[in-house]
Amino acid sequence: MKKLEVGILGATGMVGQRFVSLLEHHPWFEVAWLAASERSAGKKLVVGAEAVEVEEVNAHSFEGIDLALFSAGTDPSRHYAPIAARAGAVVIDNSAAWRMEASVPLVVPEVNPEDIAQQQGIIANPNCSTIQMVVALWPIHKVNPIKRIIVDTYQSVSGTGAAAAEELVHQTPLVLEGKDIIPHVYPHRIAFNIFPHIDVFLDDGYSKEEWKMIHETRKIMHAPDIAISATCARVPVMVGHSEAVHIELTRPLSPEDVRHILAEAPGVVIQDEPTLNIYPMPWAAAGRDEVFVGRIRQDTSHPNGIAMWVVADNLRKGAALNAVQIAEELIARKTI
Amino acid sequence: MKKLEVGILGATGMVGQRFVSLLEHHPWFEVAWLAASERSAGKKLVVGAEAVEVEEVNAHSFEGIDLALFSAGTDPSRHYAPIAARAGAVVIDNSAAWRMEASVPLVVPEVNPEDIAQQQGIIANPNCSTIQMVVALWPIHKVNPIKRIIVDTYQSVSGTGAAAAEELVHQTPLVLEGKDIIPHVYPHRIAFNIFPHIDVFLDDGYSKEEWKMIHETRKIMHAPDIAISATCARVPVMVGHSEAVHIELTRPLSPEDVRHILAEAPGVVIQDEPTLNIYPMPWAAAGRDEVFVGRIRQDTSHPNGIAMWVVADNLRKGAALNAVQIAEELIARKTI
Repeated sequence: MKKLEVGILGATGMVGQRFVSLLEHHPWFEVAWLAASERSAGKKLVVGAEAVEVEEVNAHSFEGIDLALFSAGTDPSRHYAPIAARAGAVVIDNSAAWRMEASVPLVVPEVNPEDIAQQQGIIANPNCSTIQMVVALWPIHKVNPIKRIIVDTYQSVSGTGAAAAEELVHQTPLVLEGKDIIPHVYPHRIAFNIFPHIDVFLDDGYSKEEWKMIHETRKIMHAPDIAISATCARVPVMVGHSEAVHIELTRPLSPEDVRHILAEAPGVVIQDEPTLNIYPMPWAAAGRDEVFVGRIRQDTSHPNGIAMWVVADNLRKGAALNAVQIAEELIARKTI
Repeated sequence: MKKLEVGILGATGMVGQRFVSLLEHHPWFEVAWLAASERSAGKKLVVGAEAVEVEEVNAHSFEGIDLALFSAGTDPSRHYAPIAARAGAVVIDNSAAWRMEASVPLVVPEVNPEDIAQQQGIIANPNCSTIQMVVALWPIHKVNPIKRIIVDTYQSVSGTGAAAAEELVHQTPLVLEGKDIIPHVYPHRIAFNIFPHIDVFLDDGYSKEEWKMIHETRKIMHAPDIAISATCARVPVMVGHSEAVHIELTRPLSPEDVRHILAEAPGVVIQDEPTLNIYPMPWAAAGRDEVFVGRIRQDTSHPNGIAMWVVADNLRKGAALNAVQIAEELIARKTI
């Protein structure tokens, strides 16, 4: 089979670089070009054994391209995704620009791969904190529908991007030395601190990140009636998002049954021997492809409740890997 | 008024040192001695302008003492609290040893000061993560009874003690330099990591810390029927515990009404202008006496639900300050 020609927009970002590494030596895909905004164009990235210069994206970039992976933010995505689609490429977009468009599939391959068939040139990759949660919840929902989800997150700085990761690295020794901190990326110091603030706030007191978890979960799971509430917090961790998840099911379900269900679930690894100090942690999940689930137990506040702790690498399964899995699913389903 | 003679057991610990500083120049209390276990005896602590040697506690330590503040762990507390009480002192104990004893009041002065009258020589100081939550919830519960609480915590290392704080300080630069970490205090690396593990685990999959939040909240609020579930996680923060709290009330209540209630509540400071980047954070709460509440909003998963974010200094309001406030309440109520 001839490899598909893939363009990567936003190649210099943390997710973009993972696109590059996931496509190196891929049996089905070949990187045709790396592109970015004017600011990052001209940088060089290593692809295989070569140093490849990052081009500035323009309206002609997409000619001859089969697949375009976007992780360049909302505005470039709004602008270039339709151009790429008109040029005949399928765009898999990691930004929030298209996720809630009715005509754009929002896909987690373990959950709703069949939605890919509806694509009209753009497929949206969900928000990182949503992806890992639905991978863990969908197998349960299929056998015992979930009626309500309460989730509180512990999200790493790499979710914001490379500048935020650098800010944490830069601030940390300054705090230890008792020096003053002037934050740049975040409104507050992140070293040895936490703030319940991810993305911007709306008038209802929720952050956009929290609404993403609500709306995207319902769309991906085709479950518009699930009651969901979320608090999203930033923590001084480099890579890996953690989530305390509390669900209410239609009928009672034992923690043992949840473990049996998740043991069979694609993309899930159970780490649940707390008395042996085994449970998911961001440090251990970083660089891994799976969603790690532990602390599975009866939720003591509801007879049909289950509580659990869900961790994944936000740059991989939460972003780049999920997008590449969508691309693989496109081929498996002969949709491209 | 003659000052009461106070003995401090566990004076060299993080909470013990805060007992000392809170009692310096206190109008009603005078530190008679500082004591600790054999391991820490002989150390010197500065009290006012003096260096005071820490004694090894023994069965005679409590003679002539009016009040004993304990923060020495569960075993010393089980042993010495009855001895101190028989010697005529009132013990305010920061360990978990006595909290759930029916005959021992478990007190947060903003919530159940009247329970102090039941004391028979021992009063228990609640768990840090419980104290800050009930200070924020009690004023709401009084006007619109809470039926269910789901809380997920972000707890700082100082809750474990000085050795844990040192471990975080020690590990952090090693991680930044890419060196190997051998954890000592915790089972896993805490620098740039998170684990859902505080205190030991029980067979039901919950940690003792999580059960403390459930049982202690019900006892303090005299609300044995509140449904409660908790996930307690350790985060790489020095001082200050954060909590994402979701409550279900008996009747609907608007976020505005919650703000009005909490604006009048003792010991509570509202920090709730998220669009101006104002919300509680552990870094800002460290060293402060109050419980900080923000992100007050409708819980989108329940018509009678409210979600909020609660932060306090776990060593002060979560431990030493609450104990000293209990002592002050003893005097105000002429119970000592």
